[in-house]
Amino acid sequence: MKSKIKNKIRVISLGGLGEIGKNITAIEYKDEIIVIDCGISFPEPDMYGVDLVIPDITYLLENKDKVKGFFLTHGHEDHIGALPYVLKQLNVPVYGTRLTLGLVESKLEEHNILKDCDLNVVKAGNTIKLENISVEFIRNSHSIADSCAIAVHTPIGRVVHTGDFKVDYTPIDGEVMDLQRLSTLGKQGVLLLLADSTNVERQGYTISEKVIGESLNRIFGKATGRVIVATFASNIHRLQQIVNASIFYERKIAFSGRSMEKISQVAMNLGYLNIPEESIVGINEIGKYDSENITIITTGSQGEPMSALTRIAAGIHRSVQVEKGDLVIISASPIPGNEKCISNVINDLFKRGAEVIYNSLEEIHVSGHACQEELKLIHSLVKPKYFMPVHGEYRHLMQHGLLAEKLGMDKSNIFVSQVGDVLEVHSKAATISGKVKTGAIMVDGLGVGDVGSSVLHDRKLLAQDGILTVVITIKKDSYTIVAGPDIITRGFVYVRESENIINDARDIVLKEVEKKLAAKDMSRRNIKFAVKNSLSQFIYMKIKRRPIIMPIIMEV
Amino acid sequence: MKSKIKNKIRVISLGGLGEIGKNITAIEYKDEIIVIDCGISFPEPDMYGVDLVIPDITYLLENKDKVKGFFLTHGHEDHIGALPYVLKQLNVPVYGTRLTLGLVESKLEEHNILKDCDLNVVKAGNTIKLENISVEFIRNSHSIADSCAIAVHTPIGRVVHTGDFKVDYTPIDGEVMDLQRLSTLGKQGVLLLLADSTNVERQGYTISEKVIGESLNRIFGKATGRVIVATFASNIHRLQQIVNASIFYERKIAFSGRSMEKISQVAMNLGYLNIPEESIVGINEIGKYDSENITIITTGSQGEPMSALTRIAAGIHRSVQVEKGDLVIISASPIPGNEKCISNVINDLFKRGAEVIYNSLEEIHVSGHACQEELKLIHSLVKPKYFMPVHGEYRHLMQHGLLAEKLGMDKSNIFVSQVGDVLEVHSKAATISGKVKTGAIMVDGLGVGDVGSSVLHDRKLLAQDGILTVVITIKKDSYTIVAGPDIITRGFVYVRESENIINDARDIVLKEVEKKLAAKDMSRRNIKFAVKNSLSQFIYMKIKRRPIIMPIIMEV
Repeated sequence: MKSKIKNKIRVISLGGLGEIGKNITAIEYKDEIIVIDCGISFPEPDMYGVDLVIPDITYLLENKDKVKGFFLTHGHEDHIGALPYVLKQLNVPVYGTRLTLGLVESKLEEHNILKDCDLNVVKAGNTIKLENISVEFIRNSHSIADSCAIAVHTPIGRVVHTGDFKVDYTPIDGEVMDLQRLSTLGKQGVLLLLADSTNVERQGYTISEKVIGESLNRIFGKATGRVIVATFASNIHRLQQIVNASIFYERKIAFSGRSMEKISQVAMNLGYLNIPEESIVGINEIGKYDSENITIITTGSQGEPMSALTRIAAGIHRSVQVEKGDLVIISASPIPGNEKCISNVINDLFKRGAEVIYNSLEEIHVSGHACQEELKLIHSLVKPKYFMPVHGEYRHLMQHGLLAEKLGMDKSNIFVSQVGDVLEVHSKAATISGKVKTGAIMVDGLGVGDVGSSVLHDRKLLAQDGILTVVITIKKDSYTIVAGPDIITRGFVYVRESENIINDARDIVLKEVEKKLAAKDMSRRNIKFAVKNSLSQFIYMKIKRRPIIMPIIMEV
Repeated sequence: MKSKIKNKIRVISLGGLGEIGKNITAIEYKDEIIVIDCGISFPEPDMYGVDLVIPDITYLLENKDKVKGFFLTHGHEDHIGALPYVLKQLNVPVYGTRLTLGLVESKLEEHNILKDCDLNVVKAGNTIKLENISVEFIRNSHSIADSCAIAVHTPIGRVVHTGDFKVDYTPIDGEVMDLQRLSTLGKQGVLLLLADSTNVERQGYTISEKVIGESLNRIFGKATGRVIVATFASNIHRLQQIVNASIFYERKIAFSGRSMEKISQVAMNLGYLNIPEESIVGINEIGKYDSENITIITTGSQGEPMSALTRIAAGIHRSVQVEKGDLVIISASPIPGNEKCISNVINDLFKRGAEVIYNSLEEIHVSGHACQEELKLIHSLVKPKYFMPVHGEYRHLMQHGLLAEKLGMDKSNIFVSQVGDVLEVHSKAATISGKVKTGAIMVDGLGVGDVGSSVLHDRKLLAQDGILTVVITIKKDSYTIVAGPDIITRGFVYVRESENIINDARDIVLKEVEKKLAAKDMSRRNIKFAVKNSLSQFIYMKIKRRPIIMPIIMEV
C-alpha cells in the first residue's frame, strides 16, 4: 500500500503489538521511513521445531527507497535479534548506542555480514537529521545498559517512543532517565506517544536495580562455599553488582555459557562492565581456588534446555559439578511459559545438595519494565495528543489504553492497534487508515521461512500420535500386489501392544487394495485414499488415536 | 520387597513426592496396608500426546492381600482420578466423604465399573477400624467441599496426613477445620506427620474463601451485561458464592462445559450446592433472558484447549457468543505451565469486546493450600516426632523440611523422601530402609501404559524436524532396483524449498543402494544402515536439521 497523503505521519508496527517480542515499528513521513528496533520473538509452544521468529518486512521491502535506517532503543534480542536476517534483505544504516551496536556487531559477525553493514554509534542526547525527519535518542533506564527512548521530529509534529523502560532514580551507572527532556518535549507538544505496556497490569513502581545489590551483598556475606549466579547475560548492571559483591568478599569470577561469555566480553571491551583483570578466571581454572573464593556467573536463569545452569543441575557441565556448600542464586523471574523448566532446574540443584535461592524466597530480581505509577508519570510529562500502547499482548495494550483514559485522555485519541495497522496522524486528527502485509517468519535451523503452517500442522499430529506408513508394491500390467503391504510406525504405541492392531491393519489394507485392483482401478490417488480412510477409521475405533497415515504405492 | 519387620509402620508414597499430582501413599502395619488417595497427574510438556499419568501400583499388587482399601482425603483429580484405572487391577473398598465418593461414582460409571466397586461413605469424625489399624477422618478446609485430613492409628503410634489443606476460619459451609482434634492427637502423641507442601514458599496466610464472595458481590453489582465466570468445577464453595451473587442481583444461572455440568449436578444432588430450581436455566435458553439477568458459569479457567471458555473466546461455542457488555471473570490462578493458554484466552475475549477481570486485576481467587504461617500452626498443634513433607516438587519438600527445622525439629527426624522410598517408623527410630518399584504410567487415548519412552522419544524427534521416508523396491534374484527410491516427507520443510534437497537425497540413496547391490549385499539391515547414515549426514550438512529417516526396502 503506497500512501498518497504527504502531510501525515504514518506509524506501522510490523511486530510487538499483541505479542511479547518481535518489536519493530516504522514511522513514515513524506518520502522517509525510519524503523525503530528489529527484534525476534521466541516460538509459541505449538511452533514445533522452530528456533525463533522474525518479522515479515514485506512493507519495508516494497518501500525500499524510503527506508533511511534502523534506530535501536537497546540491545535485547526482542529489539535487535532479527537484524542479521533483515539486513540481508534490506541493507540500510543502523543507529544505536555503543553497547547496543557492540551487541549487534557480534551478531552480524556470526552471520558473516558485518563488513557489509553500516553501523553508526550515537549517544543519548544525539539527533540524527534526515531530510524531513530527525531522530533523537533520549536516555531511559531498562534492564540493559545504554538504553534509550526515541523522539521522532517532523515538520507536522513529534512522535515519542519510550522503548522498553522503567523509571530507576538510582541506576547502577548513574545514567538516570532524562525525564526533563521528555517533559520539555511534552511542553513543546507531542503529537503521538508510543509506550511500553509490558507491566501495565502491575500496580505501583518497579523497584530500583540498586536494591538487588543490597540483597546480593547480604547473601554473599553469608555464603561459605561457591556462589553460582544465573541471570540474563544482557543485564550488565546485574552482572556488575554480582561482580562487586564478589570482589568485596574476595571471590574470583568465572563466566559460563555462550551468551554470558560473549556479552560480558563485549561489555568489558566497551567499558560497560568493570572487572579488575586479576579477578577473572577461566571456568576451567576454578578448581585452583578455594570454594569460598569463587563466583560463577552463568546463563540458564530461564531453565533453557542446554544452558550452563541446566547442565550444572543435570550433572553434565564440563567444568562445574555441584558440591556440598554451593549456593545457587537464580537472579531472574520466569518468563511465562518457562516456569516448569526453571522449577526442574531448581529441583535438580537441591537434589545434588546445593542451596538454591530464587525469587519467591528473596528479592534477587527486579523487572526492567515500568509499572502503573511510572507509566502515569510518563503520560503526565509527555502529555501526548494521541496515544498508541506498544510492547505487550492485547490484554496489556487494552489495560494501557484504559490507564490513559483514566488519566483524562479522550478515548477516541487512544489507538489499541494490531500488527500491520496503519495509523495516520496529523495535527488535527488520527485514524487507522488501513493495513499492510505482516506476519511471522519462522527460523528453523538454517532455514528462514521454509517452515509453514502445513509443516507445523504435520509436526503437531506427529507429536500427538505418531505416524503409520503403509507401503505396497504393485505390478502394473497384471494388477497384482507383488510386495507388502508393510506397515511401519514411529511414535505410535509399543509394538508389543500394537502387534494385533498392526496385523489387522495389514489385512484391511490388503482387502482395500485388492478391491481396487479387481476393479482395474490403478489410480494411486484412489488407492491411497481408500487405504487412508479405512485405516484411520479402524485405528480410531480400536484405540481412539489419530496417527498420520501415509500410504506409499510403488509400481513395478 | 516384603517386610519382615512386624513392629514398624511403613510409609511408602507411590506418587506425590517431587511432583505436583499423582498423590498416593501406602501406610502399612503388620498385615495391613491402607492407601491414602489415588490421583492422576497431568503430562509434562515433553510427554507428547499423553492425556494423563497414573501411578505404578506394582507394590500394591504384589501385596494384594494386605491392601484393605483406599481412603480418600477429597475429590480432586490428583487425589481420586486414577481410581478407575487402579480399581480394575486391585478391587478393594474405597472410603471417603459423600461429595468425594459422589465424584468417584460418576467416574466409575463412565468407566463402566461402578457396579463392581465397593464405595463406603464416611463422615468427618468417623473412624474405620481394621484389624490392627484404624483410620480416622478429620475435617479440614480446602478448595473443594467435604475435604478431610486422615489419622492412622496403630498399636505402636499414630500417623497424621493433612491431605491438601488450608486453614480457613470462615469457610462458606461453616465446616471449620477440626484444629482441636489435631491438637488432641498432638497432645496424645503423633509419631509421624505427613503434610501438604504446595504453598510452603509463600509467606503469611492464605486468604479465606469468603473474601472472594465480597469481591464477586462488588463486581456483580457494577455489571450491566451478562457475567461469565470461569472457575474450577470442583470448587463447590466458589460456585456457591457465584450463585449467591447471581441470585442477589436477579440473574439466572447457566452452566457450560462438561465437567462443570457434571460436578455441579453431583454437588446439587448431594446438597453441597444450593440453587433454587427456578434460578437454573439451560445454556441453550440464555437467549430468552435479558443480558443483565444472566450468569454463565464455565470451565476453562486454565485456558484448556477445548474448554467452554476457550470456545467462547474463539467464537466457536454453540450457545454463547461474546456480546458487547459481557463481563468475563476468570476466578482462578494459572497453574504453572498454563500461563500462555490463559493469556491467549484473555486476549481473544478482549478482542471480541468483552471486559475481562483476572487475578492480576482483582482479588477473585484464593489458593486452597496452606502458606507458611498455617503450616507452622499445624506443626505446632500436631508436634510430631517424625516429619515427612508431601505434595510438592522437590523444592517444596526441601523448604517444608527447613520450615520444620526452624520450628525446632531435629534434622535427623525430617525425611525429605522420594517416590518409592520406604520409610520405616517405630516409637524409637525412623529410617528409609529401601525402595519399591514405582513409576508413571501414561494414558493416551484408550491405551494405558502402551506409550513408553522410545515412543515419546520418536514423537519428540518427529515434532522437532519431521520424518523423511525412503522407499525402494529391489528384485532379489537380479540384484536390481525395480522401483524407487521414492522420498516422502511429513513435518519437514516446504516442498518448494526442499525440492533440490530431495532430488539430491534421491541420488545419494541410489548410489548407496547400488553400491550394496553391486557387492551382492542383500542384507536389508546393511542397506538400511547405509541409506540412513548417508542421508542424515547430507541433510544435516545442508540445513542443520535431524529429521527421522526411515528407509523401507521392499523385495519382489
